[in-house]
Amino acid sequence: MSLIFRPLFEKESSTYTYLLADSKTKEAIIIDAVSDTKQRDIGLIEELGLNLKYIIETHVHADHITSSCPLKAQFTQAQIVLSEASLVACADVLIKDGECLKFGEFTLTALATPGHTNGCMSYVVGDKVFTGDALLIRSCGRCDFQEGSADKLFDSIQKIFTLPDETYVYPAHDYGGRTVSSIWEEKAFNEMIGGNVDKQEFVRRVNAMVLSLPAKIHVAVPSNQVCGARIMINKP
Amino acid sequence: MSLIFRPLFEKESSTYTYLLADSKTKEAIIIDAVSDTKQRDIGLIEELGLNLKYIIETHVHADHITSSCPLKAQFTQAQIVLSEASLVACADVLIKDGECLKFGEFTLTALATPGHTNGCMSYVVGDKVFTGDALLIRSCGRCDFQEGSADKLFDSIQKIFTLPDETYVYPAHDYGGRTVSSIWEEKAFNEMIGGNVDKQEFVRRVNAMVLSLPAKIHVAVPSNQVCGARIMINKP
Repeated sequence: MSLIFRPLFEKESSTYTYLLADSKTKEAIIIDAVSDTKQRDIGLIEELGLNLKYIIETHVHADHITSSCPLKAQFTQAQIVLSEASLVACADVLIKDGECLKFGEFTLTALATPGHTNGCMSYVVGDKVFTGDALLIRSCGRCDFQEGSADKLFDSIQKIFTLPDETYVYPAHDYGGRTVSSIWEEKAFNEMIGGNVDKQEFVRRVNAMVLSLPAKIHVAVPSNQVCGARIMINKP
Repeated sequence: MSLIFRPLFEKESSTYTYLLADSKTKEAIIIDAVSDTKQRDIGLIEELGLNLKYIIETHVHADHITSSCPLKAQFTQAQIVLSEASLVACADVLIKDGECLKFGEFTLTALATPGHTNGCMSYVVGDKVFTGDALLIRSCGRCDFQEGSADKLFDSIQKIFTLPDETYVYPAHDYGGRTVSSIWEEKAFNEMIGGNVDKQEFVRRVNAMVLSLPAKIHVAVPSNQVCGARIMINKP
């Protein structure tokens, strides 16, 4: 069996979308697809002759609008997957920690990793972990909105760190043009939690982050709570 | 043997830099490193404990300044590699079509692919080809400066197309956030040459491209002709 694996990038929000498929059966999944790049992604899925089975979100994003609903309108057999804890009604599958989804011969396993938001889920496929905004390359997600908790995020990253050292780490974002890391590297070099930082120091570092609100948060969050379906939103 | 493979992205010029290494011997090569991201790349090479052996350019770029010289200043044992046809004096190795370079157990083979510039070189490592600005994803390089020739580019892409269909294609740029393609996909879907377009039609399409000059061309080309060494440049 052979995995088709296509990392894709959306420049404005520096978001990575991941398309994975079984090269034999053509069953496919997409993780964190973005509204702005939906035509690119639809085109690629069609050109590769894939059968999109699951449209998966690592969490309800605050910085971009998902293309879950538009993708489902195009690939009507596909199911939208979000964490049970993300409290959205638009998902077809509300996945829990430890549950699995199959695409062809491949298995995706959900790993609850709350902290950036309470509904954050990481996903493991073979030697790869898709960490959303929990573990970023040399960094981690912020915890100052959407029920964020630096305390929980510390435990979640420790959970991710129980994966084998050689596991590839694919985050939802990188703002410096890095595309992949590995568990051993993040254990060693992550600037928030690497080098055996303890929980108290990690929480202090997360709370010391100086960040402005994502420009699109007041549009993105309500829109993503309905999986990117078109809705009328009154900006505050 | 196992390959360390790190695609890296520079957002302003949408340039991909590729770091490859033998995980056992730690011998490494870097392809198309960019001045703006040299600190990121130096940091990563050091963190991964790599021994940088070759600093390789696919061609003399017009859109960004290379970090070849700064990288060599940091990793003094490394050799700068450019095509013999690129007519630059700063390279340690002037590589010719068909010549090979070794890093650890891996071999890189040069494939002369002129057309975007006369000195363009693609490089094959195992199941991957690094195509520079010759073959882009669903597109190809422009041919309107630096001794460009759409006629030559057609032949060069046909040469790339003799690689196995499943070979992964890693270009020097993608402006739409795609990170990788494959030979069969480009044969089928490339908008300039896919679907058995003949040379006459390809040349017509390339010549019909409406493009402004790269913003940095008058700085980048002379700077890259000396491998990114600091020089005084009078902008025209």
